[in-house]
Amino acid sequence: MHAIDQRLKSGSHKILDLDLSEVRLKDNQYFPWVILIPKTPTLITEIFELDKNSQQKLYSEINRVSQAMEAYFRPDKLNIGALGNIVPQLHIHIIARFKTDLAWPHSLWQENIPAKKYDAETLKSNTENLCKLITAKTNLF
Amino acid sequence: MHAIDQRLKSGSHKILDLDLSEVRLKDNQYFPWVILIPKTPTLITEIFELDKNSQQKLYSEINRVSQAMEAYFRPDKLNIGALGNIVPQLHIHIIARFKTDLAWPHSLWQENIPAKKYDAETLKSNTENLCKLITAKTNLF
Repeated sequence: MHAIDQRLKSGSHKILDLDLSEVRLKDNQYFPWVILIPKTPTLITEIFELDKNSQQKLYSEINRVSQAMEAYFRPDKLNIGALGNIVPQLHIHIIARFKTDLAWPHSLWQENIPAKKYDAETLKSNTENLCKLITAKTNLF
Repeated sequence: MHAIDQRLKSGSHKILDLDLSEVRLKDNQYFPWVILIPKTPTLITEIFELDKNSQQKLYSEINRVSQAMEAYFRPDKLNIGALGNIVPQLHIHIIARFKTDLAWPHSLWQENIPAKKYDAETLKSNTENLCKLITAKTNLF
């Protein structure tokens, strides 16, 4: 497998491995923010570079994680994005946004608000509960 | 069908209708930027609210448009995003980004660079050529 870029690992914690993607939680209590990183044999930068079967898996996993984020955080809006201008390795952001959050209505891909780390208990409960919700959803797309 | 939000229509031009989505080109020569707006009977704000069949169509259409953008503009990176913090009606951005563009490596969802409209000829050639490429791709996901 192509290694996950250190910049994607840094400041985030693994929630679980899905069939295609490693799912990680950014360690920032200001913004509930999950990243999916497809595990591929070679470096992939665009979704359309994945073979058809892997694309299906990716979309299914985006959906699964989106619904877990929705159920757990009850946000006003999800922000989903695949950018890669700075870290080219394909990764998909799924962020739970609130009208009351520090950056609303701006996107978070250009914000300079420094992250505030979770306390250990919240980090543990977030990763564990998201893991449960993501794996519990068996009847999805 | 639920009407397309005027803010999505404003400053953009229709390229074509796909099975699910209306595809529009933003009138901004600085950034090749297409928006897909799923045509739904009621207001939808999140991808997971679409039924399974419509989700499949949406992902297929994102892929189709992504590959047309890649073939036509030959960008360094695509930026794909579904945000909706300002206009909640579900819409997906697909933007062709270049290391030489005015905002690189920042995202464009928080940029304040005023749009520069296409000249009539470039607008016509972009919409026509993208339309051809999008419809020509018949063997995709």
